[in-house]
Amino acid sequence: MGVQLKNSLTHLDSKGEVHIVDITAKTVSARRAVAESWVELSESSLQALTAGETPKGDVLATVRLAAIMAVKKTSELIPLCHPLPVESVSCEIDFVLPGKVRIVVTVSTTGKTGVEMEALTGASVASLTLYDMLKALDKGMSIGPTRLLRKEGGKSGDFTRKVEEDNG
Amino acid sequence: MGVQLKNSLTHLDSKGEVHIVDITAKTVSARRAVAESWVELSESSLQALTAGETPKGDVLATVRLAAIMAVKKTSELIPLCHPLPVESVSCEIDFVLPGKVRIVVTVSTTGKTGVEMEALTGASVASLTLYDMLKALDKGMSIGPTRLLRKEGGKSGDFTRKVEEDNG
Amino acid sequence: MGVQLKNSLTHLDSKGEVHIVDITAKTVSARRAVAESWVELSESSLQALTAGETPKGDVLATVRLAAIMAVKKTSELIPLCHPLPVESVSCEIDFVLPGKVRIVVTVSTTGKTGVEMEALTGASVASLTLYDMLKALDKGMSIGPTRLLRKEGGKSGDFTRKVEEDNG
Amino acid sequence: MGVQLKNSLTHLDSKGEVHIVDITAKTVSARRAVAESWVELSESSLQALTAGETPKGDVLATVRLAAIMAVKKTSELIPLCHPLPVESVSCEIDFVLPGKVRIVVTVSTTGKTGVEMEALTGASVASLTLYDMLKALDKGMSIGPTRLLRKEGGKSGDFTRKVEEDNG
Amino acid sequence: MGVQLKNSLTHLDSKGEVHIVDITAKTVSARRAVAESWVELSESSLQALTAGETPKGDVLATVRLAAIMAVKKTSELIPLCHPLPVESVSCEIDFVLPGKVRIVVTVSTTGKTGVEMEALTGASVASLTLYDMLKALDKGMSIGPTRLLRKEGGKSGDFTRKVEEDNG
Amino acid sequence: MGVQLKNSLTHLDSKGEVHIVDITAKTVSARRAVAESWVELSESSLQALTAGETPKGDVLATVRLAAIMAVKKTSELIPLCHPLPVESVSCEIDFVLPGKVRIVVTVSTTGKTGVEMEALTGASVASLTLYDMLKALDKGMSIGPTRLLRKEGGKSGDFTRKVEEDNG
Repeated sequence: MGVQLKNSLTHLDSKGEVHIVDITAKTVSARRAVAESWVELSESSLQALTAGETPKGDVLATVRLAAIMAVKKTSELIPLCHPLPVESVSCEIDFVLPGKVRIVVTVSTTGKTGVEMEALTGASVASLTLYDMLKALDKGMSIGPTRLLRKEGGKSGDFTRKVEEDNG
Repeated sequence: MGVQLKNSLTHLDSKGEVHIVDITAKTVSARRAVAESWVELSESSLQALTAGETPKGDVLATVRLAAIMAVKKTSELIPLCHPLPVESVSCEIDFVLPGKVRIVVTVSTTGKTGVEMEALTGASVASLTLYDMLKALDKGMSIGPTRLLRKEGGKSGDFTRKVEEDNG
Repeated sequence: MGVQLKNSLTHLDSKGEVHIVDITAKTVSARRAVAESWVELSESSLQALTAGETPKGDVLATVRLAAIMAVKKTSELIPLCHPLPVESVSCEIDFVLPGKVRIVVTVSTTGKTGVEMEALTGASVASLTLYDMLKALDKGMSIGPTRLLRKEGGKSGDFTRKVEEDNG
Repeated sequence: MGVQLKNSLTHLDSKGEVHIVDITAKTVSARRAVAESWVELSESSLQALTAGETPKGDVLATVRLAAIMAVKKTSELIPLCHPLPVESVSCEIDFVLPGKVRIVVTVSTTGKTGVEMEALTGASVASLTLYDMLKALDKGMSIGPTRLLRKEGGKSGDFTRKVEEDNG
Repeated sequence: MGVQLKNSLTHLDSKGEVHIVDITAKTVSARRAVAESWVELSESSLQALTAGETPKGDVLATVRLAAIMAVKKTSELIPLCHPLPVESVSCEIDFVLPGKVRIVVTVSTTGKTGVEMEALTGASVASLTLYDMLKALDKGMSIGPTRLLRKEGGKSGDFTRKVEEDNG
Repeated sequence: MGVQLKNSLTHLDSKGEVHIVDITAKTVSARRAVAESWVELSESSLQALTAGETPKGDVLATVRLAAIMAVKKTSELIPLCHPLPVESVSCEIDFVLPGKVRIVVTVSTTGKTGVEMEALTGASVASLTLYDMLKALDKGMSIGPTRLLRKEGGKSGDFTRKVEEDNG
């Protein structure tokens, strides 16, 4: 059974040691991934975000930029990730439910491996940045779920998460 | 009301523009923060992690190291965070519940501002790294809740999260 | 004369070789620096920036964040700069004159050396970021002057630039 | 008019929010950009740079290396820049006029987008580095103009700046 | 003779100034490099590493991860190195001789230039990381030789080091 | 014996897991470390370095700057290293013996922990950079020994290496 487990954990070699998986022989193709991360806020934090005009703008722009810049840093953060030249990044922030903010990050590239980790890292850092800006109001915020919504391109095929309810 | 909101969002100045808050006049003191992040796995992913001996070691060490190195990068990731010389970091990984892994990151410093964001960033990147190593088995994993458990030191006082149930 | 020149170029040692100047014996004190950088735009670029509502917000927030994050990276960019824990950063953007945007970055720290390079680096990267966002409209933009306006704290005394005219 | 403006600011999407522009569909081609940045010095600073032999060498090499390393960091500094694998970088420093130093940075790549920002970032950081090494002599130095001289390759066509006089 | 020397030092242009060599015209091909680095330890340090079970695991995993992450940072560390998208990295650690640890790092890419510097940088940082973890026991450790073992791919042909004896 | 070993490996906690050692309770004091790294070259490489005038200058300045910048990156490279504000760095390069170059890096700080790893990292990256610039001439170069020469300050006391012969 040991052998089987080691094989299924692709980041481990036959001796169970970490390595960066060899992708030299893979073909270059278009890749895209979409991830979401939710932040649960108190009523007062949400009000601080949605009331008024100017503050909101800079707060949300900061969240979007943090996501974008974190996407570009993914291979520095996730030890076994391949570096990839990202070719598009976007970050949407929605106030869909009472007390919840939803952040969706979409990343594309043309490469030998997918951009799931890039999208998830961007979404996570976006949530952390929102937390940072609201933490003086509310230390009890909670981040999550953070998860992959879609993945397109590559040999392993497409993936679409079945989200039972759209509420984090 | 606009003014009040702007004040409560400390990362915005009186014009609603982002800045790094001035802490020059604050006093240096010992600070500590503890954050957790949960990862929800399929049964088979969890088995890949817990069965066998060698693989598990390298996987968990990788998660811990990713947490530690991310803590040191916090001020590069969270745009309005002050850079801080972290003085200790640890990362514990527990398999407390069926299908769930709990990651707890503890950070200390002696400085003018707290290390909540450092602990939360470490815990988030630890979860992302675990996800990365298991994603060939299961793309449906979910990360969260990621949240602050404790904060000690500093003028705003200590904080301890009331966790109703200890299950993410 | 050679000796005199070498002494005046503090980043060179007695053999004329670069080094990071020894500041171990200096005393820690409050430091502050203010730098400005001007961008000269075409009429149409300036209109794109100032007309409408939403676009402007995100563009200016992006410039401010680029300045703030670059300040934190100064010692990675300027080879002989000491790393410093910045304690406040702000970035103001003004449209004071026809065809010109003025960016002012203010940085504070409590340390053994000043933050002139931090303020200048923040202002430079802010201008580059504005250029980046407008370059599809106008490749003929010009950045400058970029210069120190004020410096406070430290043994070498305060400095205030005499600006003849306030127009870049 | 709002729509038109948003379109012309390519870094904003249809909602006026920042994103990294999608270049997945663009074709890979040879790209080259040349930028210059001028530094205005006092007579005594210039003398410190040009007199003697050894000091000058290390100072100019430091400026060149700062430019080269900054070019490689461009996508970390300019938030909406695509990461690009630079394939050549050079930096020339000339003392063409009394009291002025001219720095010219040339960057090439083979990619889907241009290297203007890389060349401009390299030239800016080169000027800042020169400033850093001379600031003990003269805090009144001024950087600029920093501007694009040439851009070759890519669908938008070549660009050559008309420089009226070659004197910054 | 000056000209000949300058030509042979490819990182210098015809004026003897550093630049990043132009590789735009080179063809993309598969590249691979293998480097080793040895660490000479005291008997007691080696025992601390090899006795017991748990400690050893985390120490060696830390060394491997440090190597992997350093490989990805090579172009930030070696000033004139081209950035390259590494496509596989592995790190083997062996206790082949009394008092000596041998670290071998293998890197592959598909690109216009080789990955020798990436393999050598990974091996060097692996050795430094091992040193760091053992330095409380023994400050007298020595690192080296660190050297290229093999290089495959590229126009300049393959290289295999003749290692007289396999003992560092 | 297990317990004893774990204790002696200070980077492992009582469970044998890596962490960043807690230094919050340590006192701040002046620290200094000196490390050396040797590069063994072929006769022709050495000649390329030492003959002529201009090339040599830029090559050696590049080595020194690589050392200085790597010192500042130490805590990003060595996973369990504390971040430290370095207060001086210098790098000397000597051609003391036939076929050998000796690089000595000296680092100082005022902090709670020492700068041995900073000095060793600077010396290692200096050697790698020299290798990079000469590798077109000679792939057979060898780096090492790289080792600590002196360490001053801190509770564990001073350390001076007994170097039998001064020849690498």
